[in-house]
Amino acid sequence: MKLATYQDGSRDGQLVVVSRDLSLAHYASGVATRLQQVLDDWNFLSPQLEDLSQTLNQGKARHAFAFEPEKCMAPLPRAYQWADGSAFINHVELVRKARGAEVPASFYTDPLMYQGGSDDLLGACDPIAAVSTEHGIDFEAEVAVITGDVAVGTTPDAAIDSIRLLMLANDVSLRHLIPAELAKGFGFLQSKPATAFSPVAVTPDELLGAWRGGRVHLNLESVWNGKRVGLCDAGPEMTFHFGQLIAHLCKTRNVRAGSIIGSGTVSNQDWSRGYSCIAEKRAIETIEGGAPKTDFMQFGDTIRIEMKGLDGASVFGAIAQQVVAVS
Amino acid sequence: MKLATYQDGSRDGQLVVVSRDLSLAHYASGVATRLQQVLDDWNFLSPQLEDLSQTLNQGKARHAFAFEPEKCMAPLPRAYQWADGSAFINHVELVRKARGAEVPASFYTDPLMYQGGSDDLLGACDPIAAVSTEHGIDFEAEVAVITGDVAVGTTPDAAIDSIRLLMLANDVSLRHLIPAELAKGFGFLQSKPATAFSPVAVTPDELLGAWRGGRVHLNLESVWNGKRVGLCDAGPEMTFHFGQLIAHLCKTRNVRAGSIIGSGTVSNQDWSRGYSCIAEKRAIETIEGGAPKTDFMQFGDTIRIEMKGLDGASVFGAIAQQVVAVS
Repeated sequence: MKLATYQDGSRDGQLVVVSRDLSLAHYASGVATRLQQVLDDWNFLSPQLEDLSQTLNQGKARHAFAFEPEKCMAPLPRAYQWADGSAFINHVELVRKARGAEVPASFYTDPLMYQGGSDDLLGACDPIAAVSTEHGIDFEAEVAVITGDVAVGTTPDAAIDSIRLLMLANDVSLRHLIPAELAKGFGFLQSKPATAFSPVAVTPDELLGAWRGGRVHLNLESVWNGKRVGLCDAGPEMTFHFGQLIAHLCKTRNVRAGSIIGSGTVSNQDWSRGYSCIAEKRAIETIEGGAPKTDFMQFGDTIRIEMKGLDGASVFGAIAQQVVAVS
Repeated sequence: MKLATYQDGSRDGQLVVVSRDLSLAHYASGVATRLQQVLDDWNFLSPQLEDLSQTLNQGKARHAFAFEPEKCMAPLPRAYQWADGSAFINHVELVRKARGAEVPASFYTDPLMYQGGSDDLLGACDPIAAVSTEHGIDFEAEVAVITGDVAVGTTPDAAIDSIRLLMLANDVSLRHLIPAELAKGFGFLQSKPATAFSPVAVTPDELLGAWRGGRVHLNLESVWNGKRVGLCDAGPEMTFHFGQLIAHLCKTRNVRAGSIIGSGTVSNQDWSRGYSCIAEKRAIETIEGGAPKTDFMQFGDTIRIEMKGLDGASVFGAIAQQVVAVS
């Protein structure tokens, strides 16, 4: 089942069911109007949406219409939680190596994760509105999940079962604000503006076997200004799977339905696969030549993030954003 | 106007209007069922609630009933944002002095603030369910505000006008988990379990002149296991007022309606006023005698946090929690 949230002028938009091939959509209003409502009452409402999804995929939904990703808000336009891991340790290794720092041994057993802002999440085609290019605007291509309720102390394996939906994310980062902010010790705040999500969120079965062991075994493509810069495998090199990330988050507290958990920048040891954020490219340049050569994003730049399934078709639709100045 | 959220078995509870003296309540269901709904559409809905509030205060509301704080959820049982400042720099100075560290000069001009979890907020009388007393369970008595929409780049003065409601907060902290977590650089996660809020949230006019310049000029009382341990002035020593905290948060992104922003532990330079968190008491003991003597909270401990208005009456009702083991 694939779900999206259509703009309707309201803060939470209108829930639609989208066909597997992303060609058709159908309002879910007979079942639920908002995605959070479905997550709050998943066992009751999701089977009804599955029925609609099946009818739609069979071409039998009478009020279906052409699906337009440009009309999508984030699947959850605002969420009660957005916690982003840094589960690809290769990304951490690269960035640290570039600045001559060691990766602490604990980083291989204890996930890095930050609490993000979730009051203002962006649709897949919304602009990245930035205050200044001097902040060092970067994209971060990631995979993310939406959970049901997860009780404090849930184990990593059990946490996998709490995953309701998967999405792609662009965790936009302001690189030049990060060092000063992290030095204060309280984590990211100004250096992480609004995050964008893929047009559709999908149930794990839509990955047709590529969802295994809490990881998505598919390539994540990043296209910056029309040029493919990354085609990174989101599977085997994810040091901590999503169950482990969720278990980390719920170690001392309950995690409630509708929480979004991110993988962090997808990153592979094989540099020829490219990169899912510019910071990593700059780290490689620094390691190889002593200094970064690639600039961060400028106003007018575009970024497209997409993932093809085992059948070669786009799973989530594409995140396709342009950087603009805050007006 | 004073507003509360009554338990009704649902995730978001039922909005009630509460009388100024906290004796009576009335369901707001003719106007709105949930507080977030009111914040989403404040200019239209809040005058209708003000009318009901006035009728209730005049003793003329026909379906009023006795207000019971024990039946309250947090005014927002789940929120789209909870960002907590550390606006009382005296607290930061004390904690740093105890461990022999300097306060960086920038801390006096650039607020400390962390992004907190907001998916699971506690009612005023909900237990503090902790995994282990070895985590160093501490209370933190604070003032918090709920905002309307605040556009990116809003100035501190203008941000004050975005404040819709005020509350008290108990930002429970797990002190022994903090050092390792902050050393990772990504801020608090496991060390900040669910935060509790006062029974009622109030509009600024309810402070009868004690709300001035973005600060609450009233004393915040903390009673631990029946003993008053703090009576700290939340006003003049708040280094950054709430407008400054909100402006800090919205420097690079929009802040959306229903965001909760906290003051951090209320703290005064005059040690005779006591403390609003145990960490501060331990810092003073360390400064005076070389080591802390006071233990953190144990299972069964109670904490009561309350603020009296200029008229001597409780403004927000009391946060009254007990520490229990996660079952």
